Amino acid sequence: MDSVTLRACTGSAFSLCAGSAIRISSTSGAQVVDFWAVNPADPDECLSMEHTRTSLSRITPRRGDELFSNRRRPILTMIEDTSPGRHDTLIAACDPERYRQLGVDGYHPSCAENYRVALAAAGVRRSGIPSPFNLFMHVPCDADGQLRFLPTASRPGDYITLRARIDVLVVLSACPMDIDQPHFAGHRPRPSDVDVHVIPGTPG
Amino acid sequence: MDSVTLRACTGSAFSLCAGSAIRISSTSGAQVVDFWAVNPADPDECLSMEHTRTSLSRITPRRGDELFSNRRRPILTMIEDTSPGRHDTLIAACDPERYRQLGVDGYHPSCAENYRVALAAAGVRRSGIPSPFNLFMHVPCDADGQLRFLPTASRPGDYITLRARIDVLVVLSACPMDIDQPHFAGHRPRPSDVDVHVIPGTPG
Repeated sequence: MDSVTLRACTGSAFSLCAGSAIRISSTSGAQVVDFWAVNPADPDECLSMEHTRTSLSRITPRRGDELFSNRRRPILTMIEDTSPGRHDTLIAACDPERYRQLGVDGYHPSCAENYRVALAAAGVRRSGIPSPFNLFMHVPCDADGQLRFLPTASRPGDYITLRARIDVLVVLSACPMDIDQPHFAGHRPRPSDVDVHVIPGTPG
Repeated sequence: MDSVTLRACTGSAFSLCAGSAIRISSTSGAQVVDFWAVNPADPDECLSMEHTRTSLSRITPRRGDELFSNRRRPILTMIEDTSPGRHDTLIAACDPERYRQLGVDGYHPSCAENYRVALAAAGVRRSGIPSPFNLFMHVPCDADGQLRFLPTASRPGDYITLRARIDVLVVLSACPMDIDQPHFAGHRPRPSDVDVHVIPGTPG
């Protein structure tokens, strides 16, 4: 099992063969990880939150669920989740404009930039930034449709494992958000490292 | 005020100057209208459901709310909504694969195809299909994150009006969905016409 540390605030891409899996561990328990998946053989095909919600008739995938591409086929399976299952499919990746609007003067790392850099480093070209699967991000929706941005519900060492159903390029970003925001209700995220394990598939 | 009928199951694009507005009326009260907006001067910029949810901290825009692009700026304002406000930002546009999976043998019109054809006819090129704003589509989310596909809550003649904050190309599709589905809970949509009014802006 290959293991790497994804440093706080950074991104990286991981090539998975069909049948292999990726395990993403929140060492602090408090880190959000933005997750994307692109078909490197046809980069127009990517993991799609709107198609996944449609296929599952549910906002958030659970252990055992398939994750669907914009071609409506399952490309990943969530095979493990030791956390309480609070993940987000609704919120856009943070980007330089988000930080500018939050009052940051000058450079701030962002998930959108981490995605772009990791994808380019992997030699994959596609336009736009798909809506991410935000692992461990806790944004419950009340009956009135109001969203609350809460601290992660995960604990130190909680992990989620996704198995690839096709050869796929996974892009991860350890979210660099560290700004006080009114809708964070008093908590301020503290970026931390993430452990990533790529688990080879068992032949045949 | 220019008025056109968008025939059941078809799509069309409408050019709005900043300050003008588009009013979309469900004549039957039961018709879902997929809504997109693209900046024709920079087609990479489009209305984004994930950025709108993030900016509003709410799943569904309401009267008075701004709708945001993937550059995090407001490009439309919802200035009127006579319906009960049940609209969807979570579900992907129907497409040929969706109908194939629902058992349709052969051609079936779809919102995705309507979008592509209308955009091309307007001379705008961009890749992918943004997640649509599904007007009058009633897909409530319960506290467990489960989605239910319910009949529209709108009444005959209900309308929604959106004012452009920039010059924008709006694409509409009168959703052609007419297939019985288990998650429709016994109701089957009957495609119907939609009235569209483009309302010029008042000079300065």
